[in-house]
Parts: sequence; C-alpha cells; structure tokens
Amino acid sequence: MINIGILGATGYAANQLVSILLKHKNVKISKLYSLTAEKKDVSFKYPSFYKILDMKYSGVENYPDDCDLIFACLPSGESELYAEKAIAKGLKFIDVGSDFRLKDEQINLKWYKKSFRNKDLHKQAVYGISELNAEQIKSANLIANPGCYPTSAILALAPILSENLTINTPIIIDSKSGLTGSGKRPTESSHFVNANENFTPYSIGSHRHLPEIEQALSEIAGEYIQAVFTPHLLPINRGILSSIYVNCDKEFELSKIHKIYEEFYKDKKFVRLLPLGQTVDIRQVQNSNFVNLSLHKSENTLIIMSAIDNMIKGAAGQAIQNMNLMFGFDEEEGLDLFPNSF
Amino acid sequence: MINIGILGATGYAANQLVSILLKHKNVKISKLYSLTAEKKDVSFKYPSFYKILDMKYSGVENYPDDCDLIFACLPSGESELYAEKAIAKGLKFIDVGSDFRLKDEQINLKWYKKSFRNKDLHKQAVYGISELNAEQIKSANLIANPGCYPTSAILALAPILSENLTINTPIIIDSKSGLTGSGKRPTESSHFVNANENFTPYSIGSHRHLPEIEQALSEIAGEYIQAVFTPHLLPINRGILSSIYVNCDKEFELSKIHKIYEEFYKDKKFVRLLPLGQTVDIRQVQNSNFVNLSLHKSENTLIIMSAIDNMIKGAAGQAIQNMNLMFGFDEEEGLDLFPNSF
Amino acid sequence: MINIGILGATGYAANQLVSILLKHKNVKISKLYSLTAEKKDVSFKYPSFYKILDMKYSGVENYPDDCDLIFACLPSGESELYAEKAIAKGLKFIDVGSDFRLKDEQINLKWYKKSFRNKDLHKQAVYGISELNAEQIKSANLIANPGCYPTSAILALAPILSENLTINTPIIIDSKSGLTGSGKRPTESSHFVNANENFTPYSIGSHRHLPEIEQALSEIAGEYIQAVFTPHLLPINRGILSSIYVNCDKEFELSKIHKIYEEFYKDKKFVRLLPLGQTVDIRQVQNSNFVNLSLHKSENTLIIMSAIDNMIKGAAGQAIQNMNLMFGFDEEEGLDLFPNSF
Amino acid sequence: MINIGILGATGYAANQLVSILLKHKNVKISKLYSLTAEKKDVSFKYPSFYKILDMKYSGVENYPDDCDLIFACLPSGESELYAEKAIAKGLKFIDVGSDFRLKDEQINLKWYKKSFRNKDLHKQAVYGISELNAEQIKSANLIANPGCYPTSAILALAPILSENLTINTPIIIDSKSGLTGSGKRPTESSHFVNANENFTPYSIGSHRHLPEIEQALSEIAGEYIQAVFTPHLLPINRGILSSIYVNCDKEFELSKIHKIYEEFYKDKKFVRLLPLGQTVDIRQVQNSNFVNLSLHKSENTLIIMSAIDNMIKGAAGQAIQNMNLMFGFDEEEGLDLFPNSF
Repeated sequence: MINIGILGATGYAANQLVSILLKHKNVKISKLYSLTAEKKDVSFKYPSFYKILDMKYSGVENYPDDCDLIFACLPSGESELYAEKAIAKGLKFIDVGSDFRLKDEQINLKWYKKSFRNKDLHKQAVYGISELNAEQIKSANLIANPGCYPTSAILALAPILSENLTINTPIIIDSKSGLTGSGKRPTESSHFVNANENFTPYSIGSHRHLPEIEQALSEIAGEYIQAVFTPHLLPINRGILSSIYVNCDKEFELSKIHKIYEEFYKDKKFVRLLPLGQTVDIRQVQNSNFVNLSLHKSENTLIIMSAIDNMIKGAAGQAIQNMNLMFGFDEEEGLDLFPNSF
Repeated sequence: MINIGILGATGYAANQLVSILLKHKNVKISKLYSLTAEKKDVSFKYPSFYKILDMKYSGVENYPDDCDLIFACLPSGESELYAEKAIAKGLKFIDVGSDFRLKDEQINLKWYKKSFRNKDLHKQAVYGISELNAEQIKSANLIANPGCYPTSAILALAPILSENLTINTPIIIDSKSGLTGSGKRPTESSHFVNANENFTPYSIGSHRHLPEIEQALSEIAGEYIQAVFTPHLLPINRGILSSIYVNCDKEFELSKIHKIYEEFYKDKKFVRLLPLGQTVDIRQVQNSNFVNLSLHKSENTLIIMSAIDNMIKGAAGQAIQNMNLMFGFDEEEGLDLFPNSF
Repeated sequence: MINIGILGATGYAANQLVSILLKHKNVKISKLYSLTAEKKDVSFKYPSFYKILDMKYSGVENYPDDCDLIFACLPSGESELYAEKAIAKGLKFIDVGSDFRLKDEQINLKWYKKSFRNKDLHKQAVYGISELNAEQIKSANLIANPGCYPTSAILALAPILSENLTINTPIIIDSKSGLTGSGKRPTESSHFVNANENFTPYSIGSHRHLPEIEQALSEIAGEYIQAVFTPHLLPINRGILSSIYVNCDKEFELSKIHKIYEEFYKDKKFVRLLPLGQTVDIRQVQNSNFVNLSLHKSENTLIIMSAIDNMIKGAAGQAIQNMNLMFGFDEEEGLDLFPNSF
Repeated sequence: MINIGILGATGYAANQLVSILLKHKNVKISKLYSLTAEKKDVSFKYPSFYKILDMKYSGVENYPDDCDLIFACLPSGESELYAEKAIAKGLKFIDVGSDFRLKDEQINLKWYKKSFRNKDLHKQAVYGISELNAEQIKSANLIANPGCYPTSAILALAPILSENLTINTPIIIDSKSGLTGSGKRPTESSHFVNANENFTPYSIGSHRHLPEIEQALSEIAGEYIQAVFTPHLLPINRGILSSIYVNCDKEFELSKIHKIYEEFYKDKKFVRLLPLGQTVDIRQVQNSNFVNLSLHKSENTLIIMSAIDNMIKGAAGQAIQNMNLMFGFDEEEGLDLFPNSF
C-alpha cells in the first residue's frame, strides 16, 4: 500500500486519477493538493463525488507530506520544482503535465519558452509511453507522462516505424479531441454555445504536441521523422480520434502491415488492433484505458485510425499504468475499465 | 427608413437583432454601442458576419446620436438611464432587458434589488407581449420587451385565462431552455463539458421571471394567479419548451379548449396552434418568430406545450415585432423566418 | 457462484447488465439469449466489447439451460412465458421488462392490451423497487423490475407519501430522459438529426409508466394517488431527471421535509439526498446506480428533483441490486460504480 | 417566373431547396414529386412547415407537368431516366444526386456499378461547381450538381492547382460531416445513441466522392491529381469541414499563396477567404451558401481548411446558384442567407 499525492488536484486529469485510484488495490490517496481550493471538499468541486469521497483539498506547506508517489497535474512550467523536491526526498514522481516531455532543452525553449532548471532531472526523466518504454519505466523515478494527442499518434505509428519500410515524410496526423482536453476553466472556445454544433481546427502547425510527437517517432525510427499535426475540437466530452496518413514509397499489402501490428502488440492488453475491414470510433474506447487501432489503405497511402479516451489512456490511465510498472504492481490493476457501449 | 441604435451590442440578443434587421426594409442600423468592444469590428466578435456586416462597435459619448429607436440589450439595472435620455430626446426605446418589466416597485425591489429611478418612465412603459398588447404597443414610446420564459408561458396561458373557467392554482410551468439563454459570457454552467450530456434545473422557485409571469397572467385573468416556475438548462443552443399544467376544477373536453385557443389566436400569424393529437417540439420553431402550442389532457389536468426560439420570439424577434407595431410597419416585416427542418 | 441467463441479450438493458455482471464476484454469465443474433459474437453487436467478452448469442432451444437466474429484457408481452418455464424449473426470474409490473389485470389489459396468462405467477411477482421492498424481494422468485421513469418518481415521493401530510393531487411528474430509453432500434424519433438540438414531449397523459407510478404511489400512501406524468426526450444518451410538484395543503418548512427524507433513506447507500440549497443534475448520477434527490419549494408547492441513470438505477443496476437481495449477496456487490464527473 | 418541380421531394436536400425557393423572387414551386408520400401534406413530413407551405406531394404520372426546371434529389441511378424525359421536352434539369457527376463511363461503372443509359446526355451534362464553371453552366440544360464533400475540397484546391506550383501527390483530404449528410432514413449509424458523443471515420479509401474529387482536381490542374479522401461523421446536424494537406516540393511563403487565393476568388461573393492568422470553423457558414477558407502551413506542407453547410453550398444552395446562372437570374438571388452566430 503506497501513499499517493496529487498536485493540481481540482483539474480534470486529477479527478480522473482519483476516480480510478479509489478502486486500486495497492494505493491510498493521501493528499489532494490544490492552491485554489484548499480546505474545500472534493464534492464541492465535483458533486458526482458526494458521499463517495470524503476528502478536502490540501495546501502544499508540508509537501510531499507522507506520500510515496506524486502525480503532478499542473500547467506547463509548474511541475519542475515539485519534482525536484519529491525526487530529492526519495519519492517517485509522475508528471502528467508537460515539463519533462521534451528532451532537448533548445526545443523546449522554443515551444514552452522555458529553459531546464535542473538538467540532471530532465536526464533522469523517462517518457512514459507504457507499451513502448516499459523496461525503462520500471526503474524510473521520474516519468514524463505523454500528451493525449501524442499517445494516440505514437502508438498508432510505432509498429510501422519499427520496420525498415521506406516511407515519405511528413506523416500527416489529423487529430480530433473532445472538450475535456481543453480543461476545466471556462473560456470562449469551451463555451457550450460556441463548441456545440461546431467543429474547430486550432493551433495548426503550432501545437506543442508536435515536437513531442516528432521526438517520439524519431526515436522509434532511429532517424528524424517529420510530422504535420493538426488538432480539432469535437463537440463531445471525451475521446480522441487521430486519422494518420503514411505515404509509402510503393505498393504494399495491407494484410502484411496488419500482421506487423498484430505481432508488435501481441502481448499488449490495452492495444486493441481491429481485424482488417473494421474501423475504430471513439465510442469503442470511451471510459477505458484502451487504444483501438484500425488499418486502411488508399493506393500507396497507409491510413491508420487510432482512438483513445483522452482523459484515461491519454492522461490518468496511462499515468496509473506507469505507476503500476514503477512499483511492480500488476500492470492492469485498476485499469480493467470497460468502454461504454452507449 | 428609421435609424436604429443597439445598446449592449456584443451580446447574443443584440446579435440576433442585427441578423434580422439587416434584411428589414424600413430600418438602417446606425449605431452598435458597446463599452467593451468599442472600435472593434463586429466580425471580430462574430466571425460569421465577416464580409456581411462591415461595422464597428461605438462608444456612448454621443448617445443616442442620430437614432430614432434604441434597442437596449443590457444587464439588469443598466437600461433605465439610457431609456430616460432617449425618451427625453423624443426617441422610442425598446428594453430587451428587464428594467421595465415589473410594474410594482416593491416587487421590483424584492426581485431585482432596485427601486425605480424615474417612476413616470415606468408608468409609460408598455409590456410588449405583441399578440396580447398590440394596441398599447402601437402608441407606446417605451417598451418592456418580455423575458424569454414569460413569453412562452404567457402566450400558452392567455386564452384559457381569458375564459371564466374555474382552475386551481398554482399553475405549474416547467420550462427548459437552450444555452444561448445563459448569454455570451463563459461560466461554469455554460462550460461545454458541464452542460453537454447533462440537464440541470436551476433557480427553482426563485427565478426573476416568476414575478413577471405572475404579473402578466394576473392581468389577463383579472385576479392574482399564482404560478410555480422551474427553469432547466437543455444541452442545445436555441429554444425553449415549457410544459404547463393547469388543474381544472372538473372534467373538461379538450376539443372545446382547442376551439377557444383557435378563436383566440385566429389572426395571429406567429402563433401556430397544432391540431389536436399533434405535439410541439423545439425544432418546429428554431430560427423563427413562431410560438407553437399543443394541447393535451390527463384527467382533469390541462397540459399545454409551448415552444419558441428563445433568441427570436423570446427576445430579438418579439422586439422587432414591437418595433413594427410602434412605427406602423407591416407586423411581419423582417420576421418571415422559416424554422429549420434539421 | 450462480449462472446467469439473459433474454433479449442484444438490447441496451441487457448490454448494461453484462457490463456490470462481468465484474460481479458471485455470478457467471452463462447464456446470452437472442433470437435475432444467434451464434453471432457479442462484439459484433457491441464493438466496445471486443477482446473483453468472448461469447456468442444463443438460441432458446434449451432455455433455461444450466442457469440459476434469468434476466428478461424483452418487449412487452414476451416475458411471461419464459418466466413460467423458469419458475416451474425452480429458477429465479427478474423481468427487466414490463409484464409483471401492473398487479391489476384490468389495468394491465387497458394499458398493455394483454390479459394475464398465468394469474398465479402475477401474484407471486414482487415489484422490485429495491429501497422500498427489500424484505419481499429477498424471498421472491419472480421480480417485476420497475420502469425507469417510475423508479425516478417513486423514490422521490416515497418519504413524503409515507408521512400523513395532507397534499392535493394530482402530483405532477415532469420527466426528461436520454435517448437510450428509446432502445437500440433506429426510428424517426431516435434519428440523430431529429433528436439532436431538439427536445420533445411525447405520450402525454398516455404513457404506460403512468399506471405503474400510480400503483406504487398509492400502495405507499395507502390510498389512491392520482398523478400526471409527462415524459420528454432529451438529446443526451443516458439519464433521467424528474421534476416533481406536490401541492401541499398549507405552509410547510422545507427543512422539516428534508429531515423526513434524511431519516427515510438513512441506510440506503444508493439514495443520495443533497443538502438543502443544492440541486441535482443528471451528470451527478451518470454511469452509477445512485438516485440523487434535492428538495425545493415555491410557496405551498414542494418541488422534488430526482435524477438517475436510466440504464443502471432505471434498469440493469436495480435488477442486479434485486438479484443481490434475492441471493443474499452484498446489496452493493458489482454496483459500486462511480458517476462520471465529465 | 419559372415553374419548379422537385423529384425525391421528401429528402433533406429537397426540403432545403423548398426552404430557399419559397423566398426566391423568380420561381414558383409547382410540383413536389414523391413516390412514398404522394398526396400527403408537406407539413406531415416536415412539421416545421405547418402553416408556411400548404402543398401536397405529387405522383409522377404527368411528370414533368408544367415545370420549366427539375431538381432531382434521388438515390444514385434513379435520376437518369427523369433527366432524359425532361431534356427531351425542353426543360432544364439539375441533378442534385450523383448520376451525371462522373464523366468517364468506366469509372462510373466501377464506383456506381452502372453504365450510362444515354451517353449523349452525359456529354451534355455540366459539372455545376458554380464558382469555377459559371460560363458553361449558363448555357447548360443539364447540370450535375457536385457532391457535398467534393464542393468543400475542390473550391479549397482550385487556386493552388491553377498555378504551376510543384506539389507532391497524393493530396490528403480529411473531411468531417454532420449527420444530415447521411440522409433522412434512420439507420444504425444515424441512430442518436450511436452518433452522439462519438466520431466515426467511414468508407476510408472507398467513398464515391473520391473519383469525383480526382476528376475535378485533375481537370483544373490539367493532369491527373491523386487524392486520398477520408470522410468522418461528426455529431452535429449541419456542416462539413475539410482539412486538406498539400505537400509542396519546397519552401513557400504562405502570404504569396494567400494572395493567389485572394485574386482567384476576388469576384466570388460566396467564397470567404479569411485573413491569414484566422481559422475557419463550421459555425461560420452554417445555414448559409458560403464556403469559408483559411490557409496555414507546417514546414513545406500547405494546409487548407474549408467549411461549408453541406445542405446549402454542399447541395441545395449550389443547385439554386446554378439555376440562377442558367436562367440569367441574379446569381445571389435567394441565397443571401446569413450564417448563424449561435
């Protein structure tokens, strides 16, 4: 039984962590840190939790208190210091935010306008894409939990990039996300009247998940992989679907690619590769830790459809999967969540 | 050709006014007053208007400028002073907001926490429920445009209350509104993630439209009519449906009530009474100035279903209908808007 | 460990049963009966279940096979015969459908156009509103699982009707339901374009849940209670909110009524009575077996807001709660489902 | 004043035609042909039209009766015969369906499984993409009205393909459409519960609009242009957004491309090219005949965002625009429809 502390505990990702961790056999939620809601009941912020969780948000005066593991769900730039403190005291730290995702300080500076405060810490950080980096994650103290869009894209592309197939870059990644991805704070773009009955591309060519995706794909491929990444806001609460286009140099058989994927993910319970001829949608994975993949083609273009629940596999679920790996728990503990059929 | 000025021009009701007035034969939009968006292009706030309306928002230094008629779309308590100025200069004034709706100062004080600044002005104000008060509206200089919920309820109840049928009060008015009713400003309750896939009652027994409804119903009935009014937020953009329950003292024939309604509204083009056996829904009136009514019964209870587009018949449309009456234009000018079929 | 068979297994209620039962400690899903999908994979009908449940639908040739308990999720009129067979063989039977809900054959004939085939069976049937009839349910072999709307209304009204408070009938029950309540079969009213951005009352004064509600309320009150019941279709997937109006004969204090409710439900984990001043919404209960209640007033009218997940507390969840009672399992087993916060 | 007949008059595209044509100065709707709803009131199928349009659907015994122009809104393969009859009698004919879109009989046979019945008729048919083919349309008797997806893609790509810029094909067209695109008939995929809170790619690499897009793009470019086209279902009623990726051979300046677009569409009122830095969304064009375009880049990839209302610019609106051209009416007559701001 380990003690868990969560930073930025009033946000959506943190709330999703709490929902899952409450049923996890090996953990106890010890502290829910929040600077804005200190001493308030969790059910004040989340009425769904009334009579389910009788806890108050805490201040950070005694951070990290008695915790063994910290999940940080903080805005960009705010995790680093907390991570340093936690690691210094021998805790483990999973940054659900973005502070440790980019390995190259120059690239981080360009996209996040921030230098590395503690370069050594960044070296220690392991990129926590669970299905691909499990071995490193197991021995890590500090995890950079992947972004939601990158998770959908990287898992969709890892098998094909691991092969020495010739492809033409850039890879086109056209992603669509539900509104929980925009967070808990009311804004113009998250205003119901604006988002409902609408569909909106944003940050075209300039979203911070682009360098993260390129970093991961390049590492898998062993060479620089250029990507074009376009996110769009879908008028739904949960879920991401990424439509990914890989221009192959020549004719290919889809069934061969399908076998490569099947083999690549054969032991990965959370990756569900659909049989050829079937197509993923967001419903199939909502409220679960699954990523669903389906493969298609149009002439020489391989089309990969990838769906996840952005709050689970794209955030809290993968973070817990990483925790399970780090502490030697059953990788699936707490995560046997069935997707909704409706 | 009259010159129109609109106060509070960045809000939803004002935007709806603009959309309709741009095609009105007898008017010219002269000024769009806004304190927060002064000198900004309309299309900056409403990108839908790009290349349709090339106008900027104005400050109020020279209010009312060259206008002949002012529509005020301001928060409670902010219209009165502008009305005074306009009336003093001989303009006509339609308050789409709530400052002149309640006739009794004590009741206004109780519900809006505000005394009447200029009692004479309040005496002049005519409650602009177009189908019922047309004669007074024609000669009025100052109109209190009805609230959205009250419009749906009053038009639904006027025929039955005009008859000397014995009913037991209170009348139950269970109303459901789309999110445009909550306005343009992002809030917790208008946050997409909160409103979507949800349905929320609010201000139960304490909504400011309750005294307005009771005032209008009592005037029609010639005696105090008690109402219970409960609004709910529907996860759609536009429309109100009110389900209204009138407990009749004894057995009644629905067909007789239907004839009363038919007779009452026979010359009113914007009221569509459905044939017995049919039921209104919100779709039937969306994007139009219609109110659709259908009548039903359950034992001794008369059930009236009433649907309007909250932004049109419940705000801008009725305001324009009132303008048409005040200026002797064709009552339907600008308002022959067809509801969407999908 | 008991063996479960489900009739009408391709429908929504049955699918919800399966989702919950897969994690129930004391049961094994043995047979999923379907006449239309025999031999097809469950994941063919419900792709969300791919790699989660590897089962095929069965025909009914050997019904009830090795089952100990049957859940019937069949259209009206189709359960009775299956119940007879099951009961004759000593099985227990929970009819999630409507065949055993109405106790009075004449009333059943009027509303369902069907006489009782086996009158003795109907006498045995216990109305399975778990919180109110737990003792009878424990010793029952045949359960009539309540309708979704009745569940929301009866639990909302039981405390007040159990008191000898004088109220004026009819009680007004204005209910709003998500589209899963309309079932899996595509129809005009469930067509996305028709239901989306719309809100539709239907079966006003003539819905089959009206006599069921009146039967239950009258039994609780010990006298005939007349109700007016109006269902409406909400453009969401899951959830019912009922707005209930009780006209009390005289002035009352809401806090006293609140105490009555608190006392009445003090040991009932699935009923969450909100503190005075708070208001239920559908989100608070989605994906859970909870019923949330909040109390309000407007002059002499008590207003009760009641929210459930129509597929869980309104169907499958309550059926499993009844199973738990019948078989002596922990009443909450399988049902510690947390509502979604978003 | 010309007389209009509409075939397949109960469908969505036909209903949209009626909505617009009712306000068109130069036409009279003469016949609404429907085999399934003959003699029924239009308001029976579309309750929104109650008291707006008092017409009944007609049979086709005397087709084309007294009509001067026929709009056909029929399923694939059903227009050809009606077109032949109409043209033979000297009428003009606009096929809103797909029978005359593909020029190459072999390609038509491959995608629509149908040979050309009357090859001469197919030669006469002009592809009615109004902004590009206006001159031919003006003198045409038979118009193949473009598909909804092709309209969004072709108008987005015409300026760049008209230049002799070197690009690498295939062009990637990732399109998202609201549910009205799936038609009026209830199906699994249009079932509210399935489509709501979901997002679904379909017909990947195999949609019939692919050859139509390639045909049009190739004609503009003067050489074969390969495209990859993926449609997705969006949980909204109206609108298409296409995200289009053009891989340019080398570095380019976006401002130069923007100027090309500006020049190309400078006289085209229905094409609204947004200023650089702004992004289209579906709301901006809903309920209007506009296509909104915005230009973006990511390294060497040009990204074009294109939004239309699928029922108007993508069907009925463009058909009416073509009619205006054919009959010498003002091109904008009937089509000065303002997009909704909410």
